[in-house]
Order: sequence, then structure tokens, then C-alpha cells
Amino acid sequence: MSFNPNARISLVGAGPGDPELITLKGLRALQTADAVLYDALASKALLSEAPRESARIFVGKRKGHKTWSQDAINVLLVETARQRGHVVRLKGGDPFVFGRGYEEMEFAQKNGIPAQYIPGISSAVAVPGLAGIPVTHRNLSRSCWIVTATCSDGSLSADLRQAAASDATVVVLMGWSKPPEIIALFAAAGKSALPAAVLQNGSLPESRAVYGRVEDILQKTGRMGIGSPAVLVFGPVAALRENELHRIVQSANF
Amino acid sequence: MSFNPNARISLVGAGPGDPELITLKGLRALQTADAVLYDALASKALLSEAPRESARIFVGKRKGHKTWSQDAINVLLVETARQRGHVVRLKGGDPFVFGRGYEEMEFAQKNGIPAQYIPGISSAVAVPGLAGIPVTHRNLSRSCWIVTATCSDGSLSADLRQAAASDATVVVLMGWSKPPEIIALFAAAGKSALPAAVLQNGSLPESRAVYGRVEDILQKTGRMGIGSPAVLVFGPVAALRENELHRIVQSANF
Repeated sequence: MSFNPNARISLVGAGPGDPELITLKGLRALQTADAVLYDALASKALLSEAPRESARIFVGKRKGHKTWSQDAINVLLVETARQRGHVVRLKGGDPFVFGRGYEEMEFAQKNGIPAQYIPGISSAVAVPGLAGIPVTHRNLSRSCWIVTATCSDGSLSADLRQAAASDATVVVLMGWSKPPEIIALFAAAGKSALPAAVLQNGSLPESRAVYGRVEDILQKTGRMGIGSPAVLVFGPVAALRENELHRIVQSANF
Repeated sequence: MSFNPNARISLVGAGPGDPELITLKGLRALQTADAVLYDALASKALLSEAPRESARIFVGKRKGHKTWSQDAINVLLVETARQRGHVVRLKGGDPFVFGRGYEEMEFAQKNGIPAQYIPGISSAVAVPGLAGIPVTHRNLSRSCWIVTATCSDGSLSADLRQAAASDATVVVLMGWSKPPEIIALFAAAGKSALPAAVLQNGSLPESRAVYGRVEDILQKTGRMGIGSPAVLVFGPVAALRENELHRIVQSANF
């Protein structure tokens, strides 16, 4: 079997949803792709940036269920590179922030396929920011702790309990699967009055945000009917913008 | 006095140094700027993207010393927008990760100037990633805590002590001012054997990285003569790439 001599993989962070929030470097990788492997969080608009003859392969979840195992994605990446050449693995946010990107990169390199990491805008910083919540702010927050809600076995992350007890701004990604449990951890840490926010589709025109406190955010959010995936923010910075329901329009000011 | 009717401010994250790591949205803002206010961390190459007639004003530190106070920058931003129109405030990394960007945005809005936040790639995630350290990795790290070394009064951040005791990957930004004190906090938390890395100029060709453990990283770094600004990483993920001194060349593989 002959291998494509240009076999290589670019692991590209697509950013938080708005297609203009990809990096120039990521865009240029896309524009030279022989194949694109993408997931549900990667913007569809970006796919049209790949050359017309480029293959586009969806490897994300459908209705919350995996259609491809991580092992299968790893093999597909390597095989596609060997057959077609330059494969762009387009991932929502940044590939190394809960993206399992390093596993894909390791697997590729072990199989002799060069792999390059191209960072993306992580939702952990940008989604709060676009909702008027800076993850750090003088006199309010000196650090930011980014946590995923669930471990790979489905249990609540132990780091979340530590984070709830800290002084950091806590950002929980993929957090809408277990909101009552997550919020209960903050209440148990004596933080019922701590400002909190639930943010959905953070960088898109249809984004929604609910602002409140640990003690009432669940009730407020329930009324609004926000679903997953969402970003949760806990910390004094979440009160900088007090609107209960705020539709973010990216360039509203202009 | 007549105000420019197009007065507005775009707070743009320039990313970690490599000019190709700006977002498309950030680049487009730059290309329509009537004036650019930039600091030392923002890439000089990006400045050439602004229209030729655009004003370019440096408001960063020289040799580690502030030439402009934050209050002065705030006023300059607003006055420049009123006089010239669209001002791009170009900041290294992301404007809301220890960038004091929210203060600038608040000040602008209080003065009636619309201000837009355009996220940037934060060095906290990208610089470790480009040095072969994913801030999260299955079975090794379930969260990432981003901390600044020093508070605005110059003292060591109290959050750093909490972070040293946690299970998170700890990323310390602007951390080279007090390395012995920072590393001592981890040693005091019983983490002498914890993998650690010191990364400098993370996304540029002249980047350098030193990998070690809490107990020897200071000695190793001293030998290499790495200066500020640097990013420090603490956690098992820092051992994924064991080379002691690794020159990162962005597209070395290609």
C-alpha cells in the first residue's frame, strides 16, 4: 500500500462558535486541507473554507451520543492522512482544553504522521467575556480555574469540589449535564450568595445568558429553558453585568 | 469640540506572539482601525495590518517599567476614539486574562464610547500546548488553574498558595518576577517531585522551554538563563515531553 507523501495532521482549534474567531493560522490550515474531520462544536461555516475537493467527515456526537469512539477517531485520522495527505482535525474551542486533542496527536506521532497543534480560542475565557464577564478583574478575581463537570467515566469531577472552595473564578465547561450537583457543591462550600451565570452558545447571535447567584441560578435558568452545552461561571465577576436575561449580539454597539 | 461620530473601541486579543495566532475578527478590526494602542506583548508584525494612515501609539512597559498609568491609558483610549474614530486596543493574549481589559471597556462605556471585546488566544493555554504540554489530558489532569504571580500591589497572589495545594494543572502567567517564591509554595505543599516547566516566548521561533520538577526546575532554568516574561506550568502534564531544553519551531514537522 502506498502512502501519501504529504501525510500530516493539523489539530486546529475552531474557537467558541463564531467562525470569525478562528485564528489566521487555523484558517490557512483549513484552506490547504485534503480532508477535514470535525465535531459538533466546530462551526459549519468554517467547513466551506476547505478546498471544494476536500473530504469532510463528521466524527462528533449526535443527540449527545458518540457515533465514533476516540480509538476509532485516532485510527481514522491516521488512515485519512495516509490516503489523502493534509488532514485538519477541527475541534471546538482549543484542542487541549478537554478536547482529547493530545491523545490524537500522540497517536498520530506514534504512527509516524507529523502532527501540529494550532491553538483555538477556548470557550472558557471567551464565552464569559462575550457575556460581559471578565474571568479576571482587579480586586475581584486574581485567578481562573477551568473545570470540566464530568470525568470520562461520567462521575462528577473531584477537582470541582476543590474549585468550589477556592477564591478563583470557576468556569465549568460542558457543565449542563449535572447542574444541580455542580451548584450544590458551591452551596455546600458556603457560597449561596456567590454570583453565578449560565451561558449558552456564547459567541453566536442566538446566545443566551442567565445571571444570578448560587442560591437562585438553577430556578432562573429553569424558567429560561437553557439546555446543553453551556458554560457555567462562578465568582464575583459574574455580577459585573446584572441583567437577568441578556441576548448577546456580537456587534450590537456598532 | 466636535467628536468623531465613528468613535468606538475594539479591545483585541493579539494572542501569544505569533502574528498568525490572532483571530480573523481581530485582524479585521485592525484593518479598519483609525488608531492602534498597543503594548509590549502585542506583535509588531500585526501593527503593519492597520491602514497606513492609522496612528500607532505604544502604551506598554519599557524595560519592565510602566510609561503610562492605567488611568492615563483609559483617558487616552477615549480621547483618541473621540478624535479619530475606531480605536483598536491591541493586547497580548486575551484582554480579560490579567489584561485589565475590562477596566478599559468599563471606562469607555461610562464615557459614552461603545466598546467591543474580541477574544484572543491566551498564553495560558497556547504556550504550554506549543511546548508539548496539554493543560488537560485524560487521567493526568481534569482541570487548569490560571494564576498571576503578583497582585497589583506587587505581593505574591494568595490564590497561588491554594493552587499549589490543588490537583489542577497550574499555569502561572507573568511569573518570572518571583520564581523562587512561587516554586517554594509548591515545595511547601509537598510537591517537590511534581513535574514543572518554564516556557519563554512560547509561540515565537526563539521560544525556549525548560522541563523538570519542582525540586530542580530553578537550577535547570538558571543554567539556561531564561528571563521574563515566562509562563510556568506545574502538573503531571508537564512531564509528557521530557526534553530538557526544547526549541519549538512552529512548523518543524512540515
